Amino acid sequence: MKIGIIGLGLIGGSLGLCLKNEKLISCVSGMDANKEHQQKALELGLVHEILTLEEMKRKSDIIFLAIPVEAIIKIVKELEDIDEDTTIIDLGSTKEKIIEAVPEKIRRNFIPAHPMAGTEYSGPTAAFSGLFNGAVVAICDFKESSEKHVKRSVELFSHLGMKITFMSAKEHDHHASVISHLPHAISFSLASSVLKKENKKNIIALSGTGFNGMIRIAKSSPVMWSDIFKQNKDNLINAIDMFKKELDECENLVKNEKWDELKDWMSEARKIREIL
Amino acid sequence: MKIGIIGLGLIGGSLGLCLKNEKLISCVSGMDANKEHQQKALELGLVHEILTLEEMKRKSDIIFLAIPVEAIIKIVKELEDIDEDTTIIDLGSTKEKIIEAVPEKIRRNFIPAHPMAGTEYSGPTAAFSGLFNGAVVAICDFKESSEKHVKRSVELFSHLGMKITFMSAKEHDHHASVISHLPHAISFSLASSVLKKENKKNIIALSGTGFNGMIRIAKSSPVMWSDIFKQNKDNLINAIDMFKKELDECENLVKNEKWDELKDWMSEARKIREIL
Repeated sequence: MKIGIIGLGLIGGSLGLCLKNEKLISCVSGMDANKEHQQKALELGLVHEILTLEEMKRKSDIIFLAIPVEAIIKIVKELEDIDEDTTIIDLGSTKEKIIEAVPEKIRRNFIPAHPMAGTEYSGPTAAFSGLFNGAVVAICDFKESSEKHVKRSVELFSHLGMKITFMSAKEHDHHASVISHLPHAISFSLASSVLKKENKKNIIALSGTGFNGMIRIAKSSPVMWSDIFKQNKDNLINAIDMFKKELDECENLVKNEKWDELKDWMSEARKIREIL
Repeated sequence: MKIGIIGLGLIGGSLGLCLKNEKLISCVSGMDANKEHQQKALELGLVHEILTLEEMKRKSDIIFLAIPVEAIIKIVKELEDIDEDTTIIDLGSTKEKIIEAVPEKIRRNFIPAHPMAGTEYSGPTAAFSGLFNGAVVAICDFKESSEKHVKRSVELFSHLGMKITFMSAKEHDHHASVISHLPHAISFSLASSVLKKENKKNIIALSGTGFNGMIRIAKSSPVMWSDIFKQNKDNLINAIDMFKKELDECENLVKNEKWDELKDWMSEARKIREIL
């Protein structure tokens, strides 16, 4: 089986590293709009070769889209003439807008998937082979894709050690807005407010593991995340409003010196320990 | 040298483990209002022995206060008759209210310190000897303490591998509200809103390392943190308001579809990478 990967950053590059180790995969080809990334990916051995889009379309059994979600929307138009046996797997963090953009002709080739894997680093040098092992991958609206392409993607993801979960694109975008996109909006806001109010010396002196954990994802790629916020705008706004109500609740308990109620409220929040 | 530790949870227990390894320390005594914690601390070898407060006051060269900040305010009254050679080191996360509560007679014995070390776990079973190694400790208002007690605490903290930073209690409480207390308020609020809006299955399915990092500190002790919020009320409210302005900025950029400005705003926030 021959694989093509469009986008050789953290996600695409890590995928290349994993797939090159799979015995049933004979060739992993890559491409990236950034020529330096292409060169780096070859040097790092993330892929066997670099192809043009047209070459990749002809050669590959599966093409992965591992680029920012707005770029996915653009590139799917160029895949319209793909062979019906070729599987296209999109790895974007949003689903509804991407599915809307897929040309009708290739909708059954198309598997909308979201691997819950990433770090705050980006680009080919951030890639590592362990990224996907044990991570969840959501496969969305699978009934709209051909059975052949669903089976192929399920086999491939499970061989990479991933935990597959099926859900609708609508559900995915709603849940992801709360559990993934909102935390990014919060982390960027926290980093931004601390940078405005504190000098470097105090940040370094007083930051412990707690603060570091809270601002880690603010180090993520602005291109990738502004795209995600754009595509999941309405869900994200609802999630932010819901969070602001909780933060207001906390602030009001402090303002009104309701210390016992504050402790109870914290104890409720702390029940997240029973889940994660 | 003989050490007494009041409070045998994560902080006091970890301190006991470290200090028992120091050659110049002949005995580490402990006490805890929770009798089960006392027993557990002995079983785990966190301290050599359990003493009453009166016994500890007579025996120790240094007494550490490793209890919630409201409990520190209560117990300092009972230390008023301590010998002038005994050092009292408070390890609470707030400073101004604690210093106000210290009886004048023992103010020069008293070292207000804040180790930037902790995990989301609590109690003696959470203790481990590596907790303080490499962590920053802020020593506040040191000119109000006797030189003898300052030197002793500096020597001891540095022997534990800690990085010492001096600052005023007022500065400490302001900076800590932004860099430590605000992130806790945010994490509790995020955990609380996600628990209200999402079911267990979706949280488990979609949470990645990003979400886990953001809600880790919401697993912290509500007793400890409601006390801290109480003692640093005004600074915390200012910090929350400042953060809310940033989050509003983010939300407004999304609402108004200012995608380029959103990317720029994220890029500014991401400059935290240059510091941490």
